[in-house]
Amino acid sequence: MAQNVYDRAEFFARYSELPRSVGGLACAPEWPAVRALLPDMRGSHVVDLGCGFGWFARWAREQGAARILGLDLSRNMIDRAKADTSDANIEYRIADLERLDLPAAAFDFAYSSLALHYIEDFEPLVTSLHRALVPSSHFIFTIEHPIYMTPMHPGWAADADGRMTWPVNRYAIEGPRVTDWLGKGVVKQHRMMGTTLNTLIGAGFAIRHVEEWSPTIDQIQANGDLAQELERPMILIVAAQR
Amino acid sequence: MAQNVYDRAEFFARYSELPRSVGGLACAPEWPAVRALLPDMRGSHVVDLGCGFGWFARWAREQGAARILGLDLSRNMIDRAKADTSDANIEYRIADLERLDLPAAAFDFAYSSLALHYIEDFEPLVTSLHRALVPSSHFIFTIEHPIYMTPMHPGWAADADGRMTWPVNRYAIEGPRVTDWLGKGVVKQHRMMGTTLNTLIGAGFAIRHVEEWSPTIDQIQANGDLAQELERPMILIVAAQR
Repeated sequence: MAQNVYDRAEFFARYSELPRSVGGLACAPEWPAVRALLPDMRGSHVVDLGCGFGWFARWAREQGAARILGLDLSRNMIDRAKADTSDANIEYRIADLERLDLPAAAFDFAYSSLALHYIEDFEPLVTSLHRALVPSSHFIFTIEHPIYMTPMHPGWAADADGRMTWPVNRYAIEGPRVTDWLGKGVVKQHRMMGTTLNTLIGAGFAIRHVEEWSPTIDQIQANGDLAQELERPMILIVAAQR
Repeated sequence: MAQNVYDRAEFFARYSELPRSVGGLACAPEWPAVRALLPDMRGSHVVDLGCGFGWFARWAREQGAARILGLDLSRNMIDRAKADTSDANIEYRIADLERLDLPAAAFDFAYSSLALHYIEDFEPLVTSLHRALVPSSHFIFTIEHPIYMTPMHPGWAADADGRMTWPVNRYAIEGPRVTDWLGKGVVKQHRMMGTTLNTLIGAGFAIRHVEEWSPTIDQIQANGDLAQELERPMILIVAAQR
């Protein structure tokens, strides 16, 4: 089972203060790029892996999705998602994504935002998800980019010209990375980008789009801090099709 | 047109001394991983983009390929490849890969080793190659990995523990990278991995395998210098299918 850091009170309190926790999808800078890849939601049966506060589920319903199942390991997350939603066609459920147990051919779209980098073994999840999706359906997800995750000491350094650099190492050594993010000892699982893609391909998915997200000029003009995202990617967006 | 650095006398002299120039495929540490991805060569019509000294063309013929066309921008390379080959079913030809002009449906396998990172605009090449391949045929190539190519100052640094780190920056800023490798002012073209894959997908190729090459334990035991390749990938191997 993935580390359940979101059920630690202090971590959850800090997470709840993040812009994307307070303001939802519109406050996630990668959202416009993700949204551009999404299929038509109308009438669709959606599963959201790591639904958090349920922002995506509610958005998908606004776009005409028929039913959404939001899964999350954290009771804090699910309690909050339920409290924020009054819609009989959205179901939130506590679930361990490493033991994903979904009915066959039950969904025609799968979504996941910044959750799957907590998963130690990606292959069973992908195989299980493939079985739960109908043919031709899409699976779109974001994870922390492996360039961002891999360093033993993630944090900016300077090169000979003073330009910000990101200290990549251990890239080929997959497995846990322990960082202090909103709390001490947060464990994420580093996988090479090739491993993520090959796992999807091996399970029968076709790769449709791979985006190493970077901000637009407009986004940088509105928020200068985003310029550093040009130096190294933090978020990987993958669109796959069953 | 890509920079024709291989026709500079001094550069070519140094290139000719590299282990893989002297010893061929067996002296390229990534070769076993590439070879494992190759389809059966028997009876196939092969095009090799950036054939260099022609090592692959001769190997493919040994494996039973029917005909090989090896293309390279460099007269030095083509002269040497011709001098080393006496086989009427191998043709070597000077060609600018940025203006690839091949007959339609003429090949059933395309190969390229460490050449396409010199290409400024990947899309016309991929579109042209797609047209030149018969349906279901494979395209397998290696390029320098974008993590390796992207830094303004490529070279090892140390992190707080003294572990080797690679100073990634400008990752989202695609375009020329000028380095001193076997000579001054060698121009390569940095592309994000996503761009490389999306260009293939956009032209109609399916992505079959993406390998950020790293050495095996046996390879590291035989050559300790290869251990640094675990810290950051130098070579990207892509297998696509038309």
